Amino acid sequence: MGMEMENSCVELSNVAVSETHGEDSPYFAGWKAYDENPYDESTNPSGVIQMGLAENQVSFDLIEKYLEAHSEASTWGKGASGFRENALFQDYHGLKTFRTAMASFMEQVRGGRAKFDPQRVVLTAGATAANELLTFILANPGDALLVPTPYYPGFDRDLRWRTGVNIVPIHCDNSNNFQITPEALEAAFKDAESMNYKVRGVLITNPSNPLGVTIPRSVLEEILDFVIRKNIHLVSDEIYSGSVFSSSEFTSVAEILEGRQYKNAERVHIVYSLSKDLGLPGFRVGTIYSYNDRVVTTARRMSSFTLISSQTQHLLASMLSDKNFTQNYIKTNRERLRKRYEMIIEGLRSAGIECLKGNAGLFCWMNMSPLLEKPTREGELELWNAIMHEVKLNISPGSSCHCSEPGWFRVCFANMTEKTLEIALQRIRHFVERITTQKHV
Amino acid sequence: MGMEMENSCVELSNVAVSETHGEDSPYFAGWKAYDENPYDESTNPSGVIQMGLAENQVSFDLIEKYLEAHSEASTWGKGASGFRENALFQDYHGLKTFRTAMASFMEQVRGGRAKFDPQRVVLTAGATAANELLTFILANPGDALLVPTPYYPGFDRDLRWRTGVNIVPIHCDNSNNFQITPEALEAAFKDAESMNYKVRGVLITNPSNPLGVTIPRSVLEEILDFVIRKNIHLVSDEIYSGSVFSSSEFTSVAEILEGRQYKNAERVHIVYSLSKDLGLPGFRVGTIYSYNDRVVTTARRMSSFTLISSQTQHLLASMLSDKNFTQNYIKTNRERLRKRYEMIIEGLRSAGIECLKGNAGLFCWMNMSPLLEKPTREGELELWNAIMHEVKLNISPGSSCHCSEPGWFRVCFANMTEKTLEIALQRIRHFVERITTQKHV
Repeated sequence: MGMEMENSCVELSNVAVSETHGEDSPYFAGWKAYDENPYDESTNPSGVIQMGLAENQVSFDLIEKYLEAHSEASTWGKGASGFRENALFQDYHGLKTFRTAMASFMEQVRGGRAKFDPQRVVLTAGATAANELLTFILANPGDALLVPTPYYPGFDRDLRWRTGVNIVPIHCDNSNNFQITPEALEAAFKDAESMNYKVRGVLITNPSNPLGVTIPRSVLEEILDFVIRKNIHLVSDEIYSGSVFSSSEFTSVAEILEGRQYKNAERVHIVYSLSKDLGLPGFRVGTIYSYNDRVVTTARRMSSFTLISSQTQHLLASMLSDKNFTQNYIKTNRERLRKRYEMIIEGLRSAGIECLKGNAGLFCWMNMSPLLEKPTREGELELWNAIMHEVKLNISPGSSCHCSEPGWFRVCFANMTEKTLEIALQRIRHFVERITTQKHV
Repeated sequence: MGMEMENSCVELSNVAVSETHGEDSPYFAGWKAYDENPYDESTNPSGVIQMGLAENQVSFDLIEKYLEAHSEASTWGKGASGFRENALFQDYHGLKTFRTAMASFMEQVRGGRAKFDPQRVVLTAGATAANELLTFILANPGDALLVPTPYYPGFDRDLRWRTGVNIVPIHCDNSNNFQITPEALEAAFKDAESMNYKVRGVLITNPSNPLGVTIPRSVLEEILDFVIRKNIHLVSDEIYSGSVFSSSEFTSVAEILEGRQYKNAERVHIVYSLSKDLGLPGFRVGTIYSYNDRVVTTARRMSSFTLISSQTQHLLASMLSDKNFTQNYIKTNRERLRKRYEMIIEGLRSAGIECLKGNAGLFCWMNMSPLLEKPTREGELELWNAIMHEVKLNISPGSSCHCSEPGWFRVCFANMTEKTLEIALQRIRHFVERITTQKHV
């Protein structure tokens, strides 16, 4: 880094030297391999294709069109008036216009079947911060949250690193399409107890990352009953709620609560973000929606550590207040994602690979277990390694998502052009042909 | 909040229910009183004038002029191209153009007497997050940081709330103009030991908030020698470094390290922000500059919880890369702050009130101890209460900054027009006349 330094002898904290940040997992290793040799149609056609990144690039044209037509969203009007006020705005409640637009957008995404009160919207710089912040509020160091597997690898960092909280897995598997069952919930609770962890809550992602499926209403009801019975919290991370291919296929926990007249709602907290549904991860816009007054107040205070730029709030308040834009965006984005999903599923099927039937998200959950040399985590990572270095595709191994069954992979399909996706599918087809032939020889 | 809720019975964490967020102190109470009845020249001339807010509004015209002339900073060029790339950019290293511009700006603010390597710039959403993040990295829960008093009231939250770290005061007083001495450092260290706290570092603010003075070079050398001797860290919060009235009056710890050929630099970490010097608190731009490689790596990973909007990075990369703009801004801003400072000092002197001789910041440190009924914290808060509710000025009592001498107040002067400042000074003059007369009767 430019300057010569002595060997450091001054001590750092336990958090600083711990490995809980999780960056040494294959999930992040794949990203690095991609960064070193990224695919480019013309300049590097044999490079690595990034299929490990849940990014939505399929609907940018809609946003760009809005911005072209509405320059006032990006600037401050004539003479830069309004800039001053905006630059100074650091109230942790956030711009009222933005909170209101955000609550309304969350309602629209849910087809109007749930209401959101702008006063309960707490803003954070991304869902990463929202999940950590809720963990700080709900659990003490040494306590546990129950999280269904497979889960987003980043949770190992977000829920555990600085909070000192433990994740206890709720094991799900292919026998029932990876759905959460009351038995699995009880088993996880017992596991936590046997480790002397106090269980503080269940954290679900709905739609699920990495599964790409929504949680059925009946399962949600069971989960809610479970947390009520145990007197613990429920965090529902719904950052892919606008990426369900059809609105009617998604039930938010907000709808369940509405159906129960908000009885026991004080234990439920929803996380949302614009990173996935709008494809704006760089803008760092996350939110906590809690039905618990004390959580709202505390989360707002805590959001001082992770506020959203007022410039960005200003832009998004404009954009999300425009119902013509949001309605068209939500509809078109769903259709495009469904098209992409069908394209990848068919491509994989023609290569002989089956996926879990999905209905949401920017990825599919691919079953490569028939191709494993050994039906173990090691076998899975060997296959991952071959796909990474021979096929030059970065996909995420199920084991990095704590999946208990080996041979599953998350494959992202919305962070590239259709053309690139075609090439990726071609590479997979060739690879499968080759190893199937080898096996038969 | 709109919906009827049951009484919550589900438990929250110790952090959530603790009072360490500090919002119940007079410092924040004053803000609330202002919010309820804010002064306005025409619509509410008898309202509360906000002098408790360290905001810089004196140089906005320069930024507005820049933005008018450079619309490309706020937008993405023709056809919104570039938007896509920017919206997706969430690499925790930050935009390279912005980090480079930031390092260069930090050099300019220090008159080129210290060099900053863009690779050591870690970006965070404000200095609030930067200070917390460093505390997580340097200290374990139950450990201590030594902080000279009086200090910024927000530190009680930023350094302690979620980290579980303790602040042990280094007591400074008027006998030597509130400067830090080797004896005071040793005494604080002993205090911490007697409480069985492990001391992990010293955190200074230079220039000091609330004192409005820079730390002399010789004192900085002593502090650095102290942390080396104790083998602990030094965090230097320099968020007001561009608000020193004359560049030559400020010595950054970076210059001291340069003078020592970076020997022992691995224990030194600088915090900076654009909230004060550029007056952009809403944009949430903070930075950690560490000379310790492991701290840089860890802080970058941790910054995932508190990233800066890429839209805002884009704007500021443009603005701060423009040397014509930055040179003129830094020079003009210093001159205007000095003028404001002289105006308030003279106004207070004519009312019979003396201030600590200042040379930096957006506030002065006012000695009202001769006006106290009782020379105690209670006496100070009584006077504060009278000023708040009778004079209708929100100023910050020294006790909220943990000052060990009663009767001092921080008074901000850069968050209002000159005209409003005149009115505030007039109110103080009348108040002092009135109570002086009462005393003599």
